[in-house]
Amino acid sequence: MQINGKHFRTIWPEPNDQGCIAILDQRLLPHKIVIEYLREPDDAIRAIREMYVRGAGLIGATAGYGMYLATLKAPATSDAAFTEFMQQYAQQLNNSRPTARNLKWAIDRVLSSLNNARGIREKQHLAFKTAQAIADEDAAFCSQIGRHGLDIIQQISKRKNGAPVNILTHCNAGWLAFVDFGSATAPIYAARDKGIDVHVWVDETRPWNQGARLTAWELQQEGISNSLICDNTGGHLMQHGKVDMVIVGSDRTTHTGDVANKIGTYLKALAASDNNIPFYVALPSSTIDWELDSGMDIPIEERSPEEITSILGRDNNGAIMQLQLTAPGTRAVNYSFDVTPGRLVTALITERGICPATREGIHALFNKTD
Amino acid sequence: MQINGKHFRTIWPEPNDQGCIAILDQRLLPHKIVIEYLREPDDAIRAIREMYVRGAGLIGATAGYGMYLATLKAPATSDAAFTEFMQQYAQQLNNSRPTARNLKWAIDRVLSSLNNARGIREKQHLAFKTAQAIADEDAAFCSQIGRHGLDIIQQISKRKNGAPVNILTHCNAGWLAFVDFGSATAPIYAARDKGIDVHVWVDETRPWNQGARLTAWELQQEGISNSLICDNTGGHLMQHGKVDMVIVGSDRTTHTGDVANKIGTYLKALAASDNNIPFYVALPSSTIDWELDSGMDIPIEERSPEEITSILGRDNNGAIMQLQLTAPGTRAVNYSFDVTPGRLVTALITERGICPATREGIHALFNKTD
Repeated sequence: MQINGKHFRTIWPEPNDQGCIAILDQRLLPHKIVIEYLREPDDAIRAIREMYVRGAGLIGATAGYGMYLATLKAPATSDAAFTEFMQQYAQQLNNSRPTARNLKWAIDRVLSSLNNARGIREKQHLAFKTAQAIADEDAAFCSQIGRHGLDIIQQISKRKNGAPVNILTHCNAGWLAFVDFGSATAPIYAARDKGIDVHVWVDETRPWNQGARLTAWELQQEGISNSLICDNTGGHLMQHGKVDMVIVGSDRTTHTGDVANKIGTYLKALAASDNNIPFYVALPSSTIDWELDSGMDIPIEERSPEEITSILGRDNNGAIMQLQLTAPGTRAVNYSFDVTPGRLVTALITERGICPATREGIHALFNKTD
Repeated sequence: MQINGKHFRTIWPEPNDQGCIAILDQRLLPHKIVIEYLREPDDAIRAIREMYVRGAGLIGATAGYGMYLATLKAPATSDAAFTEFMQQYAQQLNNSRPTARNLKWAIDRVLSSLNNARGIREKQHLAFKTAQAIADEDAAFCSQIGRHGLDIIQQISKRKNGAPVNILTHCNAGWLAFVDFGSATAPIYAARDKGIDVHVWVDETRPWNQGARLTAWELQQEGISNSLICDNTGGHLMQHGKVDMVIVGSDRTTHTGDVANKIGTYLKALAASDNNIPFYVALPSSTIDWELDSGMDIPIEERSPEEITSILGRDNNGAIMQLQLTAPGTRAVNYSFDVTPGRLVTALITERGICPATREGIHALFNKTD
């Protein structure tokens, strides 16, 4: 990923500072590029809960590094004390965002990597290695998602005789939501690299404005043509033939094909279905919940009403400040995710390839025998 | 309508100041209550175009008074000169908001009231009388919409054994959008007056935030329980049984039942349909377009991208200021309305009663013989 032409990842261990993990503070983007450093295990929890970092893959990667930071503070007096500390931390970390599947997946992966380790140094070393592997794999899987999704964009481009392929996306499932490349954006970057003409409709994504603040900026940094629209607009564009496909990410996908993603995704899926426009969900398999059978059982996070009643922006002098948008005493309710039933999803794009958003499709692609 | 317990209309001729029409500046609500005065014909055009006033009925009423103000400035030298001035003004006024049907309806009504008038004084007097009639009728029709819509709410309340009836609304089709009572809100106020327990989910309504700034405030002033939500949220609420009915207004309804309303209405209609929740559109007949056969032919207004990339709010000291929300150079596209096909509308609620959103239903209710 590029910021002002320089290559970045969204999270990295500081090379000459053991036990220090660097992140971009996404709350302040695009107004200010601020790098924050996680040194304490609680720093990782705070970064996830308060959304310094967000997005399926990046939450997972941050959780992996958080587990590593925890091994540095865990008591070395006995295996039991170490394990108790780690499990308590894992639980707190897991509670930081209830809907995100990658969180639990990353925590469990670090925990199980420690199973056969002997001695505190080996545990710390393995936790670090696993966290690194989670981050590297996330980038690699997103790159593979890009390769598979490229085929779909290429076909539409061919059908349109090279006219721009109009892609609508909701929220940010870009490189800012992962370690690199992104899930929904990876096919777009792959298409750009192939010289395919693409244009992206970027849903603003209230209330946190991931689209307005992150996706529009990310695409601008990558030189991809894009137009910001309000979340209300996608249906109208689809009715008028201005959308060729929708690609979104996912925070948790059941093994039966239901997709929890940023609130409002379901409305776009309904509009795509009503207008016969293909609706794709791009996700690494770390996002799949192999236990829940129905999306309706996915816990939906509820966040502070203040995310709706006030807003952060940049004044004329470039200073970042907050404004109240509503009358004093206005009551607001802020659900962060909704669930799109698999019946509205044309296909899932994963690192292994493309499959129907059904139990059969997903299990076949991942060689699960029931 | 009530503001701080005092009765208001949204527009009124100043009693002791002939040729002066007072309005509330809705751009500044709910942060500041500012009364503006229209004295020149162009003041009415600016007030409509720049959205000091907005909403189907209020645009119509403002246009009526604008036509009256024009008669005060029209040349009295000859009938031909008067008519030419008025027709030029009528055209400019009609162009101020392209989607709004009430605009043309009110302009035509004032123009035709002048047909048989003799002398400039009689023309001015008739224009004023007609503008007053438009405003009074708007309030009366909204009150009748309330009476008809009340039946629907009452039935749901009965079915729920008196538990709160959860009503979702988009944009502001409240008293602020009309002269009084509102269209979508009139049944809610009527239900409140009957002691029926109602709770309103208020869509924020990006980009102009009519829901967050106007509807939430209007309902608060009237003591109606309400919760502000992002435009993305309605689908999730419907999936989870938290919405009993949807009521919205309309800026133009074709005589075949297609409904142009604030952008995003179509997405809510899709979600209501997917979850078997009744979706009502409340409108006075002045909003009906008797010429267009298809909603797809309704001109859709496109407004400034800055309505999306920047926002007005209240700082900690109560001052109103504007913030930038996006990176410099972000491109945005801002369509103001979308069209909900009649097939997604359970019924229309009009001053004459309730009817299906079909050609047959509408023509039967209004005794139109084809």
